Amino acid sequence: MSKRRRTTQKASRAKSPFYSVPYHKELRHPWPAQEIASPAQVERIHNASMHILENTGIQFQYPEALALWEKAGAKVDRKRQHVWIDRGLLMELIDKAPASFMWRSRNPDRSRFIGENSINFFPGAGMVFVRDLENGRRPGKREDLVNIQKLVQMTNAMHFGSLMGIVMHDVPVPAKHLTNILLGLTMTDKPLPGTSHGPIIVGDILKMMRMVFGADLQPELGPVTGGVINANSPLVYDDRMLGGMIAFAKEGQVNVVTPFILAGAMSPVTVAAAVAQQNAEALAGIAMTQLVRPGAPAVYGGFTTNVDMKSGAPAFGTPEGAWAMYLGAQLARHYKLPYRGSGTLNTSNVPDGQAMSESMWTLWPAIMAHTNFVVHSAGWLESGLTMSYEKYIMDVENLAMMQYMLQGPTFEDDDFALDAIHEVGPAGHNFGTQHTQDRYATAFYPSALHDRRNLGTWEDAGAPDTVTRANKLYKDILKNYEAPAMDSNLKQALEEFAVARAKELENVDLYD
Amino acid sequence: MSKRRRTTQKASRAKSPFYSVPYHKELRHPWPAQEIASPAQVERIHNASMHILENTGIQFQYPEALALWEKAGAKVDRKRQHVWIDRGLLMELIDKAPASFMWRSRNPDRSRFIGENSINFFPGAGMVFVRDLENGRRPGKREDLVNIQKLVQMTNAMHFGSLMGIVMHDVPVPAKHLTNILLGLTMTDKPLPGTSHGPIIVGDILKMMRMVFGADLQPELGPVTGGVINANSPLVYDDRMLGGMIAFAKEGQVNVVTPFILAGAMSPVTVAAAVAQQNAEALAGIAMTQLVRPGAPAVYGGFTTNVDMKSGAPAFGTPEGAWAMYLGAQLARHYKLPYRGSGTLNTSNVPDGQAMSESMWTLWPAIMAHTNFVVHSAGWLESGLTMSYEKYIMDVENLAMMQYMLQGPTFEDDDFALDAIHEVGPAGHNFGTQHTQDRYATAFYPSALHDRRNLGTWEDAGAPDTVTRANKLYKDILKNYEAPAMDSNLKQALEEFAVARAKELENVDLYD
Repeated sequence: MSKRRRTTQKASRAKSPFYSVPYHKELRHPWPAQEIASPAQVERIHNASMHILENTGIQFQYPEALALWEKAGAKVDRKRQHVWIDRGLLMELIDKAPASFMWRSRNPDRSRFIGENSINFFPGAGMVFVRDLENGRRPGKREDLVNIQKLVQMTNAMHFGSLMGIVMHDVPVPAKHLTNILLGLTMTDKPLPGTSHGPIIVGDILKMMRMVFGADLQPELGPVTGGVINANSPLVYDDRMLGGMIAFAKEGQVNVVTPFILAGAMSPVTVAAAVAQQNAEALAGIAMTQLVRPGAPAVYGGFTTNVDMKSGAPAFGTPEGAWAMYLGAQLARHYKLPYRGSGTLNTSNVPDGQAMSESMWTLWPAIMAHTNFVVHSAGWLESGLTMSYEKYIMDVENLAMMQYMLQGPTFEDDDFALDAIHEVGPAGHNFGTQHTQDRYATAFYPSALHDRRNLGTWEDAGAPDTVTRANKLYKDILKNYEAPAMDSNLKQALEEFAVARAKELENVDLYD
Repeated sequence: MSKRRRTTQKASRAKSPFYSVPYHKELRHPWPAQEIASPAQVERIHNASMHILENTGIQFQYPEALALWEKAGAKVDRKRQHVWIDRGLLMELIDKAPASFMWRSRNPDRSRFIGENSINFFPGAGMVFVRDLENGRRPGKREDLVNIQKLVQMTNAMHFGSLMGIVMHDVPVPAKHLTNILLGLTMTDKPLPGTSHGPIIVGDILKMMRMVFGADLQPELGPVTGGVINANSPLVYDDRMLGGMIAFAKEGQVNVVTPFILAGAMSPVTVAAAVAQQNAEALAGIAMTQLVRPGAPAVYGGFTTNVDMKSGAPAFGTPEGAWAMYLGAQLARHYKLPYRGSGTLNTSNVPDGQAMSESMWTLWPAIMAHTNFVVHSAGWLESGLTMSYEKYIMDVENLAMMQYMLQGPTFEDDDFALDAIHEVGPAGHNFGTQHTQDRYATAFYPSALHDRRNLGTWEDAGAPDTVTRANKLYKDILKNYEAPAMDSNLKQALEEFAVARAKELENVDLYD
């Protein structure tokens, strides 16, 4: 493994060292997951969640969902759109969801395994503004999403393409989702989640996916798209989310079911209660997907953190957020479901020390917890309002380091170099040994962002701080972007569909 | 526990929220340590280290050390100051070192347990320059060490006082170590390591400690000082370090035996070899302390990282450094020794995003590995050349967060708040419940540094970035410094000793 790694890196560093760190078809966490709750405590959380679903119940604000629950034997109050689910039924449904699946991409080499101890990085999503060093913060535009797709495609540590990464303020509403899908499908060959805002949008995503993957999406081969479903905490799934969820599930596509909980606002302040509620919501949502189509791939998502006591704003990258991340992963494992967490959440307004501290307080727990699907893993700033070009680079650097770290050191005879240690002996140095010469150039993780020049040399070079260096790197990457191959007829067909469909939708309420 | 925590925080937040996060008399890591090597791999490292000490050997450049090795039955070449140690003898000596000990402070409430799963933070040490926002980087002065002691005393997440924290360029050589000890002993009541530069300096440290702790240091009650011993890698202990080590060990004080290895320079490039060599060096040093005084407390130290391939400079906060940190902790546990790692190593010239990324790449592995004695855990910048006032604050914020995280969430009935969840029901909010009202003010980790205001509010406040806010905080803390109580006669005696002793040493070679 060590030898293969070295060869791959050597080959790829012939280009730029940064965006060509090796692409790993599969990234596995080789060491035990950090667990912070005992089996008895996990059982307590489980029982609390069951108590909530059995006694307090949960709203599914969508007639089709209520009908499915009724048919399955749950207690349903149609008028109040309220469902009570007993643990027997719930667990029966949860057991139908697969423990893992392959998320297919149009380039089969880019398909990703989701589940077990796999780690997969997905870029920041849903951001309203963009920011860079020269232009500051401004509303996102189509050009920005084009740029993000270029960055995503060119950074090997990023495993998924961006869909709905940025709100494009210069694209009319009926064309927004179509532009999104078109850019995602044509500019990258990485797998693409969609967005779950109602059946019309999901229907269009599925139509375009069919154009690419063939008339039948063949869910038995693994899904090709899907969406993040946010519960409207506490204890509500709204019509928009359920419309999307059901449309994806029907076709065997992925639902990443993720309650968004700020403890103290959408749940009690205590982390045990917040996580018990998250668990109740996530399980109810996943059970719903199995009512629609048993075996449809679903991911258990957690996005629970606290509020900041001084400002009342969300607080990301906190100790409480780390607890919730660890607990969510433990619960997902308990139910044999893949786990979705987040990568680089932070509340900073600029990509400075706080931004990176908080981001690391998200990424390290995510990795240590064995998070299979790490959403928002690059570019996120300002509590998710803003995509920062420079932070994208700063974050991807850390993703690449994680990817490298998770390969682990090797312990073969050759790695111990006992002859070289003997040859050098006390008080010598290892620069000249054959062992060093053979390995030196590719021995270590190669950072393109982190600057280790001494102060004098660095000042002579203009004292570029991290953001300044990241600014240069992101522009280099954009300049070097190469579009992945796509049949020109297919590309044209996708483009024509997007234009024609946007026209059709001009007077349609997309969320109906 | 949850209730106690809340009460403590409430009391302390009446003052400033930052430097009065609760002081924890003992900080334990409640969850399993991250281990990255299998037992068989640990055994392979062990065998490689034994092979090195038996076949390549190691230099002890100090006659007293060579005599002790000879007497113990090791093969010694006096002329080459070279010792070969067989595994039987080595392990016999290692077994004599205690698995844990209490590091006593002059304020018994500040004494710290070192070993098992305890975590203890020690500030950055040995830095030549200081840096702050207004004055940039400049040589350290006495005033800076005074300031550091104030920050250390006032930040509860920092457990040890600073000794030799900064090189004071305005203090004459014979007075440097005396000034250091005097400031450490009088300005803080936290435990104090010393420095191991030869028997004269260590002798003075011990004399002043005796003035404070009584004529007999009573090692059976636990040590009161000690020093970090760096091997001069590869495979050399020099006279200065050995002089200090032996003087500390004779009095039952602590030796933190820490090889400093940059893989590719002071060891082979492979991490397995670097760690095997580190292990050989650390064990040989610790065995030496047991030859001097069986049962003398010793800590297994690791400080292994790689070089940067582009600049040839040390690289800190790297994947390789994380591997070495994890492996070092596993080896220390294997030998039943306390473990010393590092907290916030980084190579950045300024306290920006890189500085905090790399620092978190040091702190997270240190914590996850169960590092008992976390050196360089605040203030470190520029590969350890510079103490940054602002970074001290940025780092201590993360230490306080770690301290909070390691308390873990609680899972009592009350924490699950099932009644509150039921009362709120779907689509409500939790602001008004009694459960929230009772806990809200003290529910979460209170950050004073991290700014979660929205962009508009933050810009109206002058858009202060992390460094700007840390600058204000460090000055606030200095302003609010309160000296810990000390008998005025004792204080005067310490001051007089320091003055008189500096005079005596005016023409003495301190490292003789």
